[in-house]
Amino acid sequence: MHILVIGGAGMVGRKLIERLARDGRLGGTPITRITAHDVVTPKLPEAPFPIDTRVSDLSVPGEAAALVAERPDVILHLAAIVSGEAEADFEKGYRINLDGTRHLFDAVRMIEGYTPRLVFTSSIAVFGAPFPEAIPDEYFHTPLTSYGTQKAMGELLLADYTRRGFFDGIGIRLPTICVRPGLPNKAASGFFSGIIREPLAGQEAILPVSEDVMHWHASPRSAVGFLIHAATLDGASVGTRRNLTMPGLAVTVGEQIEALRKVAGDKAVARIKKVPDPVIETIVSGWPRKFDAARATALGFKAESSFEEIIRIHIEDELGGKIAD
Amino acid sequence: MHILVIGGAGMVGRKLIERLARDGRLGGTPITRITAHDVVTPKLPEAPFPIDTRVSDLSVPGEAAALVAERPDVILHLAAIVSGEAEADFEKGYRINLDGTRHLFDAVRMIEGYTPRLVFTSSIAVFGAPFPEAIPDEYFHTPLTSYGTQKAMGELLLADYTRRGFFDGIGIRLPTICVRPGLPNKAASGFFSGIIREPLAGQEAILPVSEDVMHWHASPRSAVGFLIHAATLDGASVGTRRNLTMPGLAVTVGEQIEALRKVAGDKAVARIKKVPDPVIETIVSGWPRKFDAARATALGFKAESSFEEIIRIHIEDELGGKIAD
Repeated sequence: MHILVIGGAGMVGRKLIERLARDGRLGGTPITRITAHDVVTPKLPEAPFPIDTRVSDLSVPGEAAALVAERPDVILHLAAIVSGEAEADFEKGYRINLDGTRHLFDAVRMIEGYTPRLVFTSSIAVFGAPFPEAIPDEYFHTPLTSYGTQKAMGELLLADYTRRGFFDGIGIRLPTICVRPGLPNKAASGFFSGIIREPLAGQEAILPVSEDVMHWHASPRSAVGFLIHAATLDGASVGTRRNLTMPGLAVTVGEQIEALRKVAGDKAVARIKKVPDPVIETIVSGWPRKFDAARATALGFKAESSFEEIIRIHIEDELGGKIAD
Repeated sequence: MHILVIGGAGMVGRKLIERLARDGRLGGTPITRITAHDVVTPKLPEAPFPIDTRVSDLSVPGEAAALVAERPDVILHLAAIVSGEAEADFEKGYRINLDGTRHLFDAVRMIEGYTPRLVFTSSIAVFGAPFPEAIPDEYFHTPLTSYGTQKAMGELLLADYTRRGFFDGIGIRLPTICVRPGLPNKAASGFFSGIIREPLAGQEAILPVSEDVMHWHASPRSAVGFLIHAATLDGASVGTRRNLTMPGLAVTVGEQIEALRKVAGDKAVARIKKVPDPVIETIVSGWPRKFDAARATALGFKAESSFEEIIRIHIEDELGGKIAD
């Protein structure tokens, strides 16, 4: 089985390729090759099969056709300009997130008799406030960012191209990924990970919102699990509604902090500094808090059931099991 | 006030221009000029102001920019490849319905300090079965045609471009227009109008589905009313959710026939021949039947409240008040 990962240099892409290298197979079928594509060279793990890298811009005409010319059996499309950048650079966001996705879908469409499984990572940013208490699977998409708009358009294309038989698509709306490894960044959502990651590493973290802010989380390990399940799921069981809200965990910032206390003690919690930021409070108030991800759950997608579990996964996968004193 | 009508040669576009010519004003402001655009030369009424015609393909780069260069105050975008053709010709549908719309939106975006009211005609085809009994305003879009997909993508663009301040957009999802004047056509929905229009003209009509089929209708006069209300509505009262399901009338085919009997008698009803067509039955079973168009109704959009009214409007507007004996 040949797998193409588009966006292979990103955090989730890298972890996905590591997992596939470890498993050596996908849905019971041995992997013979992975092609890892991104705009920068992906860092690759050791693997029992060859991994090629391709570096190009998917939005340049012809690049998508070159990528799929060898007819990979499974395509995982994770590449995107993130929310903040797509908001700051209107044209770049549409060029990569909408046109790049459409180029990929069209490149697959143009190859006769080729209908690979194609997994598209969408986002809960397709939803925009106001919301019901828990957002059901049938709730409409009124994104309040250009990024969310581009993802919602990608979902519509995916469903139509699948209905037409051009490929066998599954779109998955990822929760906010927590705990995101790496350095603190300036994303408005950064603090959800920062208030866990920094204290566990002995660093101070800033909390810019009040403790009653609720949000929808899943670990990086779950995100990889969603991608693998979406890549191997029986398409017929999904029907015509091809885009799914992934399961996750709805917790308040206060519950995040209490989970940190249980796992790492008062000393870790004391490293969280409350510095209210009205700008971030306002941005976050427009975000979804909680979903009823009934369809994805029924289809076998699984996320964490406690925030302590999310913290423990971070400690295992990123900190070699050790936390700062 | 200068008004640009894109799709001015179509049935609704023509009726819209006739109404504007008759009114001489829009929302209290005198109309100084209309530009009527289409791929064929629109047939134009006498008017108390000049009407220019422009014939071009909106999807050709540069055409949209040329159309909006004179900064019309209001743009009404009605042009589209219809459902059946967008399904039969995949690339043409996306080129006109998606790319043409995006070219128009981008042409407006590129003119600095220009934020016209832009009305986009969408369709109830953005919805796909299965449905609840009456589809609420918050119900999600899972179109089952490429046409519906393209309209849903246009709605998303409209909301994002409006949020960004590039223009002041309102999207309206039209019900099935009934009674559609003119010759019978091969559209799967054609019979909804045919079973009224043909008998009133003394002709035989074919009914391919059972009498319990329910559907969502509004007259051509209402469609023009929706466009004019959308063109003049206070944008602030609409908020960020810029796309609205228009009100309509949910009636069964049986109720349509009983209304025809009341208006035109048994002789007219006897001209309807039942010739069941399983292909059309199947297509129609995937269509929406009924909506709860609460938001649009609260915003002042109005449709007919009985099917007899819809029939009487057809007799007044198309038959000069006379029906066949």
